[in-house]
Amino acid sequence: MENSPLFNAGKGAVFTHDGKNEQDATIVDGATGMAGAVAGVKHIANPIDLARLVMEKSSHVLLIGDGAEVFAVTEGMRLVDEKYFHTDRRWNQLQKALAKEREAGEHAVRLSEDDRHGTVGAVALDKSGNLAAATSSGGMTNKKFGRVGDSALVGAGTWADNDTCAVSTTGHGEYFMRGVVAYDVGALMAYKGMSLEEAAAAVIHNRLTLREGTGGLIAIDRQGNFTMPFNTEGMYRGHLLKGGQPVVKIFRD
Amino acid sequence: MENSPLFNAGKGAVFTHDGKNEQDATIVDGATGMAGAVAGVKHIANPIDLARLVMEKSSHVLLIGDGAEVFAVTEGMRLVDEKYFHTDRRWNQLQKALAKEREAGEHAVRLSEDDRHGTVGAVALDKSGNLAAATSSGGMTNKKFGRVGDSALVGAGTWADNDTCAVSTTGHGEYFMRGVVAYDVGALMAYKGMSLEEAAAAVIHNRLTLREGTGGLIAIDRQGNFTMPFNTEGMYRGHLLKGGQPVVKIFRD
Repeated sequence: MENSPLFNAGKGAVFTHDGKNEQDATIVDGATGMAGAVAGVKHIANPIDLARLVMEKSSHVLLIGDGAEVFAVTEGMRLVDEKYFHTDRRWNQLQKALAKEREAGEHAVRLSEDDRHGTVGAVALDKSGNLAAATSSGGMTNKKFGRVGDSALVGAGTWADNDTCAVSTTGHGEYFMRGVVAYDVGALMAYKGMSLEEAAAAVIHNRLTLREGTGGLIAIDRQGNFTMPFNTEGMYRGHLLKGGQPVVKIFRD
Repeated sequence: MENSPLFNAGKGAVFTHDGKNEQDATIVDGATGMAGAVAGVKHIANPIDLARLVMEKSSHVLLIGDGAEVFAVTEGMRLVDEKYFHTDRRWNQLQKALAKEREAGEHAVRLSEDDRHGTVGAVALDKSGNLAAATSSGGMTNKKFGRVGDSALVGAGTWADNDTCAVSTTGHGEYFMRGVVAYDVGALMAYKGMSLEEAAAAVIHNRLTLREGTGGLIAIDRQGNFTMPFNTEGMYRGHLLKGGQPVVKIFRD
């Protein structure tokens, strides 16, 4: 999905205020409890691959900015030119956001959903019963000051634990960070005995919606139950079951 | 505490592999659910003040690196020269770590507790019943590649919610990030009905210790109960009650 220009991650990521693409990604392995993440990387074609390298080849969990890219190079990953990430659609989105900002004054601008969303994520259950989750995002159009979103944070945008579930979120990242949303789904299952569907619905439709946070999540448990709640108009999503055909949806069922 | 050269935060922060001081800090307001954090800042005398500015003056939660410092300047904060953070003790600690690394090969080095610890944190209950938590850290001696620790992450190193507790952690940050430790204390109280002491003990003495993570936390609830569990030899800690004298401890009671 990072390679598709349709999504806000990898190629096709949104532009920052300064016309750069700064990307965040996290992976969590529910079998081992290990995790890797990167934030603010600018020359990595597939940030989720770098997050995985952090998990597998470093003793750390989160590497940021230039340092993360130096690590990438030491591990043999090729850096790409910033031009690789350019798409006219995202560039025009930034120009529109900048024009609106000039007109309205910085604090008056309300971002459209399209400016905030488009993060990609995946959750998986393998045949051995292991869960894993991964999330990758270019963040928000016109973001400033090295803003990092929930996609770089274990527990906020991504969580996996074989005892409960695997979760990946999308939406207005600040709300997901303040609510530690992905981990919260697992906590409700582990500590309150909720089912996956109940826990995910409680987090998105009660907790997040009460605080006026917008977005959704995809989650799967060890039995293969999955759920994809969201409180926005739509959420691009799909699933694939063993031996089945891929199913893709946008709006509510 | 950031101004004291004794602690690994602000002046007296540990040095990175490249001989820099890169600092992380987070603040969470339990009354409003708002939060602010910075990671990898190099010219901010008091990173926790900048985290608070992020919370109060930006629409974001986490700002990193140079971008965070540009935000600081736009909000009128003065940057300080890197020399401000220098202490001979921390510089010597780095030289020792580098020598050990040269001798042993990178992957063989096991950091001493002193290289990993020394984060400062505070949790507070005010007279109106509001909880808040804050954490600030220079991270690990000889850290590389833009490594960021739990002190920059809402939910990992810092949490506050008026419904449960305020928590600040110290220790080997990677374990706290993988375990979403600070938030977990609140989740055990909210979802399992544990007391503050039970929840904090469960997280440190069961969950963290089982995974061989070292460290501790300080936590307070709305009734003013407080607890400071740790699984290391000691943890510098203190408390102050209304009208009382400050109490300071290092080892177990």
